[in-house]
Amino acid sequence: MKVTTTDPRDGRQHPTDLTETDEAGVATIAGQAFRAAQWLSDLGRTGRAQLLDAVAGSLESRRADLVATAEAETGLGQARLDSELTRAAIQFRMFAAVLRDGGYLEAAIDHAADTPLGPGPDVRRMLVPLGPVAVFGASNFPFAFSVAGGDTASALAAGCPTVVKAHPSHPLTSRASADAVESAVRDLDGPDGVLAAVYGEQAGRSLVRQPTIRAAALTGSIGAARAIQAAIDERADPIPLYAELGSVNPIVVLPDAAASRGDQIADGLFASFTASGGQLCTKPGLAFLPADPGGDRLVDALRGKVAAAGGMVLLNQRIRDAYESGANALEKAGARLVAQPRIDADAGFTVAPTLLEVDLPGLTTEITDECFGPLMVVVRYRDVTELDAALATVPPSLTGSIHSGPEDDTVAVRRLVDVFAARSGRIVFDGYPTGVRVSWAQHHGGPWPSTNAVHTSVGATSIRRFLRPLAWQNAPEWMLPAELRDEYTAIPRRVDGRWLPGIDRQP
Amino acid sequence: MKVTTTDPRDGRQHPTDLTETDEAGVATIAGQAFRAAQWLSDLGRTGRAQLLDAVAGSLESRRADLVATAEAETGLGQARLDSELTRAAIQFRMFAAVLRDGGYLEAAIDHAADTPLGPGPDVRRMLVPLGPVAVFGASNFPFAFSVAGGDTASALAAGCPTVVKAHPSHPLTSRASADAVESAVRDLDGPDGVLAAVYGEQAGRSLVRQPTIRAAALTGSIGAARAIQAAIDERADPIPLYAELGSVNPIVVLPDAAASRGDQIADGLFASFTASGGQLCTKPGLAFLPADPGGDRLVDALRGKVAAAGGMVLLNQRIRDAYESGANALEKAGARLVAQPRIDADAGFTVAPTLLEVDLPGLTTEITDECFGPLMVVVRYRDVTELDAALATVPPSLTGSIHSGPEDDTVAVRRLVDVFAARSGRIVFDGYPTGVRVSWAQHHGGPWPSTNAVHTSVGATSIRRFLRPLAWQNAPEWMLPAELRDEYTAIPRRVDGRWLPGIDRQP
Repeated sequence: MKVTTTDPRDGRQHPTDLTETDEAGVATIAGQAFRAAQWLSDLGRTGRAQLLDAVAGSLESRRADLVATAEAETGLGQARLDSELTRAAIQFRMFAAVLRDGGYLEAAIDHAADTPLGPGPDVRRMLVPLGPVAVFGASNFPFAFSVAGGDTASALAAGCPTVVKAHPSHPLTSRASADAVESAVRDLDGPDGVLAAVYGEQAGRSLVRQPTIRAAALTGSIGAARAIQAAIDERADPIPLYAELGSVNPIVVLPDAAASRGDQIADGLFASFTASGGQLCTKPGLAFLPADPGGDRLVDALRGKVAAAGGMVLLNQRIRDAYESGANALEKAGARLVAQPRIDADAGFTVAPTLLEVDLPGLTTEITDECFGPLMVVVRYRDVTELDAALATVPPSLTGSIHSGPEDDTVAVRRLVDVFAARSGRIVFDGYPTGVRVSWAQHHGGPWPSTNAVHTSVGATSIRRFLRPLAWQNAPEWMLPAELRDEYTAIPRRVDGRWLPGIDRQP
Repeated sequence: MKVTTTDPRDGRQHPTDLTETDEAGVATIAGQAFRAAQWLSDLGRTGRAQLLDAVAGSLESRRADLVATAEAETGLGQARLDSELTRAAIQFRMFAAVLRDGGYLEAAIDHAADTPLGPGPDVRRMLVPLGPVAVFGASNFPFAFSVAGGDTASALAAGCPTVVKAHPSHPLTSRASADAVESAVRDLDGPDGVLAAVYGEQAGRSLVRQPTIRAAALTGSIGAARAIQAAIDERADPIPLYAELGSVNPIVVLPDAAASRGDQIADGLFASFTASGGQLCTKPGLAFLPADPGGDRLVDALRGKVAAAGGMVLLNQRIRDAYESGANALEKAGARLVAQPRIDADAGFTVAPTLLEVDLPGLTTEITDECFGPLMVVVRYRDVTELDAALATVPPSLTGSIHSGPEDDTVAVRRLVDVFAARSGRIVFDGYPTGVRVSWAQHHGGPWPSTNAVHTSVGATSIRRFLRPLAWQNAPEWMLPAELRDEYTAIPRRVDGRWLPGIDRQP
């Protein structure tokens, strides 16, 4: 079946020369991926770092074309897409640095030693690639969480060939991204199958059933995760599904913060919940503001901003429809409409940003549901002591944010931190959850329903999803990987229980 | 319902004063576990290290009673049980060392910095406990993989209260072990719920459905894992199940190894496949020996040892029955009986060790099935080049072992290592897979059906199963855990991308 693409700015569908990948096509690609693993392994860490740097360069050299293609398929503006492409390149370069550092291997050596249970053999351990992996592209990040996204960068860094199921919202961007990556592979004389894209829902389900596929990664909805898990459950051998499933991202503004810098917070909140049309998994969907004059002024400022805003183009019809029905459901559940500008409803999948309000006693589970898009519910609380119990009814989230002022009760702040520590993956102080820094210490994950496991999908440690430990017992030196030989000191390792930093790092 | 215990040495069932834990009892215990998490957290790393050391001491101070109790319930001999109790104590002490070292926290700090995407906030990450966990005791390790086993030690080290579902093969040992752990908790003024045991199959299923339980760990059969997973699937929020599910552990003896030290290898193989009645998940179930005079001599030596061996007591009737039907099935599938001594069949769950043989072309999937107990199948190969393809038909295993001599083809050795690297978790050179060293670099896991995920259940890194990452963004110093403050240098950390070893280590 032919693949079509739709411009969300006018809602028009266009043909493409792509076809949905059939069962045989998926099997062929999975076979190529399996055979490509040896090439990635032979490259070694240094060679794979060069490959990742080359991919970053290849993406940047095609910037104008990639951004224009993505703009026509997603309606995300040029500035946002430019910045997202930069982020994609940064991700590949970060994993090149991760490879050169080598600490991600968790290399450990226990020399033979006498133990209370008798002679202990020499045991050496490090992480090795899982094998080919399936990645499901996300609608809302055509670069950074799609074909050339962080999942792909971390999987290739790990040494795992990657097959990406392209998101139907941006097939041409996916193909152009795959071309950019494959071009870098070919420049290094690499084979087919290091990276490939497949198209169509059926291809995605077929992909995770391929015996050679050893893991899957998804940024998407709970429904999508359940469908993929059901396909995985048809396998004889289970494989891990690393799924990042969205989040309501509560944000608490304490009374003195609202009183002392309410205008600034209104600016920040408005920018955070409307950025990229509110189509970010870290969008703050619930803002707890005090029911006092400071809170009133903050809500007034937000109302003004929302009322003055224009329409926002959403990614596709499904998301547009879900946004409108979600907003209606929130009103039915008792949330008051504070602001929603009139917009030209004829322009493709354009919607109006929406600000709703509810008093804390009216906060029900219908209101704490995530509504993807430019919508935020303000929850007015009378006393900070009400917040712990209220936040315990909000589903666990990727993030929890706290704004406090110098006069706010530090005991209350600490209690909020404890609540968010138990129910989120990242605690943000005096800031906003959107704009996830791509770095060594980043964590993007959280208790269900944020993610389905104890992993991160952003940051240096996301590589761990695609690796497994392997141990060598009493191996002769020549049989060991270089990183596990005694004389190798270029990477951080744990030797006889002691952490030794890498010295004489490779360039 | 009352819990009974059976002495496998005579097959007699005895009443106990224990009762199966009902639904309400499990809920009460899970609630206590949830509340106990705060105490474990407040102890801090140093306090938890003291607790673990105290548990090790408590176990050792009750050695005579624990070993006698376990002997009557498992039929494992005193020497083995003595050594297993020592191993259990070692595991608690190892995790005390892991806590004092602190590297397991994976602490990382990225200071605020300008990035190509604009100002990057200060981000700090470390691992935090998942919350209360469920552990399923194993029949074959009443100490080291049961109530006071490595799962419990690693979970408590992580800061997770632990509820162990006692294995029905050793309820009194489980209760006595729980008493030993709880006594150490009480000596430190700890609350109920830090460690508890529950009894009965229904209690196990109920346990993993408790909302406060955040992970489960099992060493057992694939059937048990599927039953527990089915119970987990009834939850609204999935939790990870870390399952170690047994393995056939192929071992290859190359021609020159057989020729030059066949007698020594026969001793080693016999000891390895009959130790603890062959009831070890690392038991070598398949030995590939050359079809040449050296291989013939090795088989003769094995035949002599097996024929001269006495009966071996298995853990329970189910395992005894499965052993006998498994041995029969192997013969029906074409394996030739090489040796099986006559034994007194009246003595409880006693069985005869069994040596079978098959020629490589006759190696079918019926023959590569694991048969728990003192049974090994010798597979005779004519040429080392046949081995790669043959090993690819053997299910992935916890271990793969290679014996080679100086005249053996190093290319063949390297090919075998590649096969085992792809299909096992530990490669053993010139040794035997049983006797797993408990240490920093150990790995005990492997591709399905060895385990269900990319974790280890033995060694220092098994603590990672019970932890999840948490990030703090722009946190004021006073809100950060000590280990993430700038001035804290006692543990290994990654700061701005650089690994720094811990200095000034805590005692």
